[in-house]
Amino acid sequence: VHLSGQIQVTLVLPEIPPIDAAARDAARARLDQLTKPRDSLGRLESLAERLAGIQGRSLPRIDRRLIVVAAADHGVTAQSVSAYPAEVTTQMVRNFLDGGAAVCVLARQFGAELRVIDAGVRERIEDPRIVDLRMGPGTADFSAAPAMTAATATRAVQAGIDFAGEIDADAVVCGEMGIGNSTAAAAVAAALLGLRAADVVGPGTGVDLEGMARKRRVVDAALALHRPDASDAVDVLAKVGGFEIAVLSGVVIGCAAARRVVLVDGLISTAAALVASRLSPASPDYMIAGHLSTEPGQPHILRDLGLTPVLDLELRLGEGTGAALALPSLDAACRLLSEMATFDEAAVSRRQGDAAAGIE
Amino acid sequence: VHLSGQIQVTLVLPEIPPIDAAARDAARARLDQLTKPRDSLGRLESLAERLAGIQGRSLPRIDRRLIVVAAADHGVTAQSVSAYPAEVTTQMVRNFLDGGAAVCVLARQFGAELRVIDAGVRERIEDPRIVDLRMGPGTADFSAAPAMTAATATRAVQAGIDFAGEIDADAVVCGEMGIGNSTAAAAVAAALLGLRAADVVGPGTGVDLEGMARKRRVVDAALALHRPDASDAVDVLAKVGGFEIAVLSGVVIGCAAARRVVLVDGLISTAAALVASRLSPASPDYMIAGHLSTEPGQPHILRDLGLTPVLDLELRLGEGTGAALALPSLDAACRLLSEMATFDEAAVSRRQGDAAAGIE
Repeated sequence: VHLSGQIQVTLVLPEIPPIDAAARDAARARLDQLTKPRDSLGRLESLAERLAGIQGRSLPRIDRRLIVVAAADHGVTAQSVSAYPAEVTTQMVRNFLDGGAAVCVLARQFGAELRVIDAGVRERIEDPRIVDLRMGPGTADFSAAPAMTAATATRAVQAGIDFAGEIDADAVVCGEMGIGNSTAAAAVAAALLGLRAADVVGPGTGVDLEGMARKRRVVDAALALHRPDASDAVDVLAKVGGFEIAVLSGVVIGCAAARRVVLVDGLISTAAALVASRLSPASPDYMIAGHLSTEPGQPHILRDLGLTPVLDLELRLGEGTGAALALPSLDAACRLLSEMATFDEAAVSRRQGDAAAGIE
Repeated sequence: VHLSGQIQVTLVLPEIPPIDAAARDAARARLDQLTKPRDSLGRLESLAERLAGIQGRSLPRIDRRLIVVAAADHGVTAQSVSAYPAEVTTQMVRNFLDGGAAVCVLARQFGAELRVIDAGVRERIEDPRIVDLRMGPGTADFSAAPAMTAATATRAVQAGIDFAGEIDADAVVCGEMGIGNSTAAAAVAAALLGLRAADVVGPGTGVDLEGMARKRRVVDAALALHRPDASDAVDVLAKVGGFEIAVLSGVVIGCAAARRVVLVDGLISTAAALVASRLSPASPDYMIAGHLSTEPGQPHILRDLGLTPVLDLELRLGEGTGAALALPSLDAACRLLSEMATFDEAAVSRRQGDAAAGIE
């Protein structure tokens, strides 16, 4: 329960079911029957097991895949924390709709649907394809005032949860766009993990060393000013977060509740997943980290979430690109599990010793 | 020129054209116009550049993809260096033809043709789908005698070159199968890189620590017995190599000569690429390392070849699986380069400073 002026907004968190251990164990048992040395498919084997547990079926598959890009603007851009002007958020939303952004190309390549959420960009774009979850025309500059009220942060998370409850997808890629949002995400991560700005602030869209120093000062000063409560993720979101981060954290929770695979992307997306994990501690069971970002804050969050990234292609673009690129590996894990022949089916001899010892 | 009894066999190496620097630079220039922070697509950008240079076109694309699996048997299996009996090589060749092996699943997933080469399995399989490049019913046990004659090694490399000259593909995945071949590949790598067995011998299909120690002793003893000439890759192949390793090294050379992208897989495939690099020093320009294997020898070879692997999924299966899994990343690099909108096309503002300075 959070109080904001006269308005009291209560976050209604859905129940997150436990992982299906029987399905996971059945997948593991089948992996050991397939015509390959045991564990030789490495991380694809653990991915196949996890997907089975998430979906509750021993032969998981990812048929319907959805990439969500939540966009919002950030008042903190007034502090010159980005290499790009704030108008680029709106311009890129148009680019997402027109199919010209990187994530659009990957959505086509991997047969994914792309949904763009306006969580609060400065300039409203009238387009029926945009999911309207606007919380306002960008956050306040959190170097001076809280980014948003606790009530707004709560409504944003709830909007993400509700959105995730209405979609139809086996796997959801959590992407974002928002000039200034690597500063907000770094502040959220620092607050929740008890780190300093120096640990989590990176170049974002590509600021120089002077810009990085400025970002660090802004983050450390905001944390000193607002003193967000590390045990209250909504308080952290309200004081130094962003609308798209709040909405995405809700999307993560809603997807976990519906047993959907949640693919986490770079720093901002992973910060949203961290918020989700603090609100719904079972949600990381449904998360897969698509890639390791070059942003220094992301590995700290992944470690806290207990996630090992699938790819390391040195991306730092966001939009969901790094998470989308992991989809073929997930598909491969599913297909290898279901389509490979077993030792018996292919009449291939087992390990020396195993056959004699009756190990199957 | 190598002498073997009365027979003199001369290796005819094709000319390998230089990388097309103009196409590579055009790709680079376009990457910097696309609607993303500069370099934010990380390794996908350098892959796009490399593919452009390899194919000699500023917008590369990989339409036709071929996975080659070269299979052969190894006399050194008499020394108990593998967790599986030697009959598994032949059994797995049947599994490749029946579509039940891991690489078959990936070939279907990625729309690749699969060709199986019999480079010399113990038991000949009569099947018109098999490419017959048999050099004999497996190598000799190199713990006692050279694996093959220099003439046979030369003929095997030549057969691979000729095969590669006749195929039709933009990218070729170099896979292999052969019980005992991680021992041969480790010996080849140790000989050519001046390393000891302890640096390059791993568990292969999964021998235990005792088996690993046995493998190391076999490799060190064979190198001491035969003293292969590190400056003569054919001599190394003859003394401690394998038929599939020799044939694959020829495939690599032939692909490079035809400007095909060569995707290198795990320890054995990478050892074949190392042989290719010593015979045709320009061939690494056409190689892409698909993945980092957990076999300890492979990173040593990648370093020598100057290659950075695309994926690290902790695979150690061979068959071309790790290289095949990199195909979607290569496709993504090509598609992002050609399909993303430029800043001008999408009317997206450039970096602050860049626009004012007229940097495009």
